[in-house]
Amino acid sequence: MNALIILAHGSRRKESNLEIKKLAEKVKTLAESDYSVVDYAYLEIAEPNLLYCIDKTVEKGMTEITVLPYFLNSGVHVERDIPAIIETATEKHPDCKFKVSSCIGMSEEMPAMILERAKL
Amino acid sequence: MNALIILAHGSRRKESNLEIKKLAEKVKTLAESDYSVVDYAYLEIAEPNLLYCIDKTVEKGMTEITVLPYFLNSGVHVERDIPAIIETATEKHPDCKFKVSSCIGMSEEMPAMILERAKL
Repeated sequence: MNALIILAHGSRRKESNLEIKKLAEKVKTLAESDYSVVDYAYLEIAEPNLLYCIDKTVEKGMTEITVLPYFLNSGVHVERDIPAIIETATEKHPDCKFKVSSCIGMSEEMPAMILERAKL
Repeated sequence: MNALIILAHGSRRKESNLEIKKLAEKVKTLAESDYSVVDYAYLEIAEPNLLYCIDKTVEKGMTEITVLPYFLNSGVHVERDIPAIIETATEKHPDCKFKVSSCIGMSEEMPAMILERAKL
């Protein structure tokens, strides 16, 4: 029983946070049976935060959780803040396996996506 | 003679800014003859800033410049700050045609990219 959590920075702007919620819904549809749960969380400012989202996901019986940092750069948030939260989560839920993928900005397909978007 | 400028937020972290430079190089290679110039700029904190980058691009003889906001959300930067800079650039370079694409986070392929990245 595995889950995917899309982790965004979080914004003071409600519409930006809503964009993440909608994105997670699209990912959920596309994921089909790859993940039993697809959810989203925010690192700062907005709720739900990552630890709360993880707790809720574990309560649903998930035993493997992948966190995808929805960040364009591998900065302090990605390299320090997120691993620190995952460490806390691992201590809290020792029977759950956690994985953090590299951030979305590291995608090899990003240059092609940029060219595609620039046309629109 | 058209140009593409990838506009990132800009970071205090040198490595993050360097990631944008490298990304622009990859886009340039992939773009082949689509753009005569592919460059990058930062909205805040880091240099080159957008207006400077535009000036330099116009000096190279470019008559059409597409700015791609390398942002995940359509927040204040995308909706207010970038259009304001483009307005200034348009007044300064009336013979150059400017286009601002929607931000990279709006890409329809983003949900698929998230699922792909989550596997790694």
